[in-house]
Amino acid sequence: MSQARTFPWPHLHEFCARVFRHLGVPEAQAALAADVLSAADRRGIDSHGVARLRTYYDLLNIGRINPRARPRIVRETASTATVDGDNGLGLVVGPWANDVAMDKAAAVGTGWVSVCDTNHYGIAGYYVLKAVERDMIGWSMTNTTRGVAPLWGAERMLGTNPIAVAARAGRFGILCLDMATSTIPRGRIEVAARRGEVLLPGWAIGPEGSAATTPEAALAGSLQPLGGTEETAGYKGYGLALIVEVLTGILAGAAFGPNIIGLFSTEGKSDLGQFFMAIDPGVVDGPASFVNRLEKLIDQLTSAPLIPDAPGPVLYAGQPEAERAARQARNGIVIDREHHESLIGLGERYQLRFPRVRSLTRSRAGGRKTGDLREGKSS
Amino acid sequence: MSQARTFPWPHLHEFCARVFRHLGVPEAQAALAADVLSAADRRGIDSHGVARLRTYYDLLNIGRINPRARPRIVRETASTATVDGDNGLGLVVGPWANDVAMDKAAAVGTGWVSVCDTNHYGIAGYYVLKAVERDMIGWSMTNTTRGVAPLWGAERMLGTNPIAVAARAGRFGILCLDMATSTIPRGRIEVAARRGEVLLPGWAIGPEGSAATTPEAALAGSLQPLGGTEETAGYKGYGLALIVEVLTGILAGAAFGPNIIGLFSTEGKSDLGQFFMAIDPGVVDGPASFVNRLEKLIDQLTSAPLIPDAPGPVLYAGQPEAERAARQARNGIVIDREHHESLIGLGERYQLRFPRVRSLTRSRAGGRKTGDLREGKSS
Repeated sequence: MSQARTFPWPHLHEFCARVFRHLGVPEAQAALAADVLSAADRRGIDSHGVARLRTYYDLLNIGRINPRARPRIVRETASTATVDGDNGLGLVVGPWANDVAMDKAAAVGTGWVSVCDTNHYGIAGYYVLKAVERDMIGWSMTNTTRGVAPLWGAERMLGTNPIAVAARAGRFGILCLDMATSTIPRGRIEVAARRGEVLLPGWAIGPEGSAATTPEAALAGSLQPLGGTEETAGYKGYGLALIVEVLTGILAGAAFGPNIIGLFSTEGKSDLGQFFMAIDPGVVDGPASFVNRLEKLIDQLTSAPLIPDAPGPVLYAGQPEAERAARQARNGIVIDREHHESLIGLGERYQLRFPRVRSLTRSRAGGRKTGDLREGKSS
Repeated sequence: MSQARTFPWPHLHEFCARVFRHLGVPEAQAALAADVLSAADRRGIDSHGVARLRTYYDLLNIGRINPRARPRIVRETASTATVDGDNGLGLVVGPWANDVAMDKAAAVGTGWVSVCDTNHYGIAGYYVLKAVERDMIGWSMTNTTRGVAPLWGAERMLGTNPIAVAARAGRFGILCLDMATSTIPRGRIEVAARRGEVLLPGWAIGPEGSAATTPEAALAGSLQPLGGTEETAGYKGYGLALIVEVLTGILAGAAFGPNIIGLFSTEGKSDLGQFFMAIDPGVVDGPASFVNRLEKLIDQLTSAPLIPDAPGPVLYAGQPEAERAARQARNGIVIDREHHESLIGLGERYQLRFPRVRSLTRSRAGGRKTGDLREGKSS
């Protein structure tokens, strides 16, 4: 962390938007894509944030993603829609489709939208938090590049296929579950490699299918589904990943499972499948009642007696990310050195300097100095 | 297993239906309740089948469940409904509400129904398999009596809150995930106790919150959510259990979390919350396309290379249960001795003999002899 830099969120956002604009993405969509991407950094899910800008750059640059895509509804009912993403940025198609789901929920209580021909859409949590802004329960899922072996299988067959659900929780803010259906993300192995850690059982298998104890074996092998081995119910995580696949790629008629190309692959278009659902709790008995009940449940959970080695009180899904977002809104967003350098390099291609850094290490709020983006003001 | 008995399914079904009728449940509903209950035994989920008949008996007998409940829609939109179960049997209210969800999906592509004031509804898988009969994707969840500790918590705060999803899968039959969001069910601890096994990490904690290694400690303590401890992502299983709670008890305005009374408690009514959703894949691009794609995915998964110690090919969710159901349809349903004796005792209260047993041990099909239910014919 000592080599991490901090930047005010507006600066990162503007930098991302400018890169997208330079690549041919229209202004409003570029701003939207920057919103989605930087939402990950705000919440501390660095792997899905501006660190991926370079990937989007590469794919747009060689024409594997359509910068001026026009997503459209190809079939619909009062409460459902099928959206063709026109091979656009997932960061643009996703919010568009999510809006359709929410509009339908506003009209008839619920809406789900099935999306094909799209790309990686950032954090699933972004979409469900948007639904919460409209006092709805949001639900979103996407299939992803294969990285997870099914139980008893030795090869990557499914993605980390995330599930996100969020709802308003009164004084507790927002309950927001945003989880991959694998035990750990691939990034956790990279962290273990940097730290020289031994991997834990249930995390990953090596290329031959045996439990991976070293990061090298895991990176050459496959992640394990949530639950790990059979004894600890890995079939449940595998089943969840499969259900996500069914409700995304299979339902939408997109690519699915082992047929999805790599996240960084430039060999073809991704054609991911995504699912957006919104539920209006107000159709049950009024939205306030729902929120009051959820507030009471979270109050009970967070007051529960603790196990002996608990590092703090019981948390609820989304709480650590919301606390991180609040901290970073005050202090700036932390970007690690490697990603910072990648972004500087990216900016140089457009004579577009990445925000300069004034402080190289994190300091306490108040005395904090962050980068600036003066050059962003003239854009 | 040597003390298990086998019975033809129609005999078990008729016995259950008669018990329900004797307790005041109208004939059609009694048959329906027997359907749901025995569906669990057919699929080998013995814990949720006729073994629970005694519990339903007790609750009906003292008036804690309304035998002549009339579930009704209290609010609805084109694609949603709120159902008040009138404190009826979950085995009757559930199918009724599930039908409402499917009817709405048939009309507008999707339907979800939120149910309050109901009781334990058998296996969640029953409902989603019904949706598949109508070529829909079924989705069902229920909250349940508290048995699971949240991550870092030392007490039972949430139920095992199951998630079930099913879809038609062509030559593979039906994909049917029906999973509790805890690592193991409570019944697995009872099995461990009978076998004298040591419990595995991630299964349960003792009453003080430390990992339970003995069945005694686990039974006095709490189950752990899927994923187990923090290192193996127990926060994900906890998050899933919480989301199920939000979409069942919290959404429906039923009892929730630690406020739900015990499964066998006669101190009050259960007031569980349930969620039924149906999705018509035909609104996306025609149902045949969906099934063809799912068939292809399962073909790829079940052909995947195996880990060294794999006991067989990669399976898909619902496959073991479907194979068990097919075997038991031929050979009769296996009931263990303890539950058999409980059912005999129950039958005696009504001068209603439980099916007599002809063979005390399982034999191969062909030479199989099973119990009969001659007394059932005159009912």
